[in-house]
Amino acid sequence: MNSAPFALPQVEGVDPALLAQAWSQLDAKTKPPRSLGRLEDVAARYAALHGLRLPDTWRPCIVVMAADHGVASAGISAYPQVVTSQMLHNFANGGAAINALCRAADAELCVVNVGTLGDTPAGVLDRRVRAGSRNLLEENALSQAEVEQALQVGLELARELCARGVNLVGLGEMGIGNTTIAALLTAVFTGHPAAELVGRGTGIDDGALLRKQHVVQRALQLHQPDPKAPLEVLAQLGGLEIVALCGLTLGCAAQRVPVLLDGYITTAAALAAQALQPRVCDYLFASHRGAEPGHQVALKHLGLTPLIELDLRLGEGSGAALCLPLIKAASRIYSEMATFASAGVSTQQT
Amino acid sequence: MNSAPFALPQVEGVDPALLAQAWSQLDAKTKPPRSLGRLEDVAARYAALHGLRLPDTWRPCIVVMAADHGVASAGISAYPQVVTSQMLHNFANGGAAINALCRAADAELCVVNVGTLGDTPAGVLDRRVRAGSRNLLEENALSQAEVEQALQVGLELARELCARGVNLVGLGEMGIGNTTIAALLTAVFTGHPAAELVGRGTGIDDGALLRKQHVVQRALQLHQPDPKAPLEVLAQLGGLEIVALCGLTLGCAAQRVPVLLDGYITTAAALAAQALQPRVCDYLFASHRGAEPGHQVALKHLGLTPLIELDLRLGEGSGAALCLPLIKAASRIYSEMATFASAGVSTQQT
Repeated sequence: MNSAPFALPQVEGVDPALLAQAWSQLDAKTKPPRSLGRLEDVAARYAALHGLRLPDTWRPCIVVMAADHGVASAGISAYPQVVTSQMLHNFANGGAAINALCRAADAELCVVNVGTLGDTPAGVLDRRVRAGSRNLLEENALSQAEVEQALQVGLELARELCARGVNLVGLGEMGIGNTTIAALLTAVFTGHPAAELVGRGTGIDDGALLRKQHVVQRALQLHQPDPKAPLEVLAQLGGLEIVALCGLTLGCAAQRVPVLLDGYITTAAALAAQALQPRVCDYLFASHRGAEPGHQVALKHLGLTPLIELDLRLGEGSGAALCLPLIKAASRIYSEMATFASAGVSTQQT
Repeated sequence: MNSAPFALPQVEGVDPALLAQAWSQLDAKTKPPRSLGRLEDVAARYAALHGLRLPDTWRPCIVVMAADHGVASAGISAYPQVVTSQMLHNFANGGAAINALCRAADAELCVVNVGTLGDTPAGVLDRRVRAGSRNLLEENALSQAEVEQALQVGLELARELCARGVNLVGLGEMGIGNTTIAALLTAVFTGHPAAELVGRGTGIDDGALLRKQHVVQRALQLHQPDPKAPLEVLAQLGGLEIVALCGLTLGCAAQRVPVLLDGYITTAAALAAQALQPRVCDYLFASHRGAEPGHQVALKHLGLTPLIELDLRLGEGSGAALCLPLIKAASRIYSEMATFASAGVSTQQT
């Protein structure tokens, strides 16, 4: 049981008996056993968490949570902070990578402003908790009340999406400076040395990389974050989009809707969700292994193996959107293939 | 120039200037440069081979060529030979993995009988050259006339598909015993030691694996195939579905339509096509890296890097079907994303 005062939804794990049944079904299909490799791992768990009754309709939604970060003033990104808001407008106008990728995958795209410095363009949900987090090098990035408010943004969106039939949610994000927060949260929740978790983000040079390393070390010294107090950690380090993604993940899992991760920032949100409700991992699927060195550390801690490895380092939910068709394919293998018996195909000789 | 008497279509390589232009376009899009990793490699080449004008409609087709092999009598497969024909019926009835995967990807599926021992069910194209190839341990698997006929099956199908607007062709196959042929062809065309190219196919045990190794060595000793005479090699070793896939690949490339490979058997067909027309590789995209050890050797020889690695070992075109959405996504990144200038987004600070 979670002892935090904030009421988190309960997450029930997937029934191992259902998982075993899903594997029996898959092994009866007209293909050499396990010949679809890791796609079958996805199919089995996906079927089990749906109680072996897969939805007839395919209704995926990519949720992009956006926010700004006080720590961006430390010169740890290749792009100026205004790009967060500029990209919100680009999302609203349909011109970003995630727009093209969602259209290609027939997926809904839902963009949420959880706290940027700029305005909220039409077509983007305005759920601003505050105008950017505070600078974590000076004080806590968020108050406890702001953390709870950002978690609620995610939890409420999960309810809305599930209520209107969305049955797979992919996580995306936008926020200049947020790979620094992801490195910090990954260090705290995995216990891995922080220095190995800092990467080049969207493409910083050597000088900025040194600054980023320094920022991460200073922040850990200042806050001494305790992984056993995840809500406190989220207040210390932020950021708003990561906390909202954590809430979204918990909300989807509580309603037995699977969640498809994207890159480093989304795995940081998942690590926080895991710290709050360990069984949430049963509902998580990894999409890609990104270029950030800490991404693999986070995925391993979540017990997840990515489906693709294309050296992506964009974020926005782009890796999740690219993997939606693979999840769809896995589910259709489970629900549509004939069995050896029904198709009259001979089984193995040996 | 090819000196073979058989008239092969001419394949023109992709213009390097167009490729450079495609990269310029991609680098102007609203994303950190190259942040979509290997998806951008696909996007650039895909755009270049379409002359930078991508088709508005997405019309992929997976072609499954099926045939039987005399060498199957040597006990080199986990399944009885009758499974080739049983699976043709399964394809016709829509119950196989490739059926589910094509439906999931909104792709057409075209199944062709190039030479099975059994009949051709309704819904499968009957292009039988002969009822299975001869046993390559005793004689040439095919006559030169049969090779040319099977090549024509592929070339004609390429014309038909391109004429009705199909703009991406994925290769698939069905034929009990055909990983043995693939290992032989890969050994001949790459010069790699044959012993390292023999794998477990759909799942043979240690005894069958030893037999398969032995069969491959005996066949190479018997035929002494010459990689500089690819049509003769195809006659010596077969098989009909591989020769037809070779023809299909050449036909698509000649019409500037890209070809998406699947597993080991399809890369063997591509190696034969490369030996006949080296520039065909400009039109090839690798889908997955399969479990067969020789698959990677073949992909490397073709100069291709696979998009996914899911330990697939099914064939049927399943890996190609799974990667269709990734190719679609790459093409949409190229054709639909806004530029930094058009979207008013700031570029990098550094």
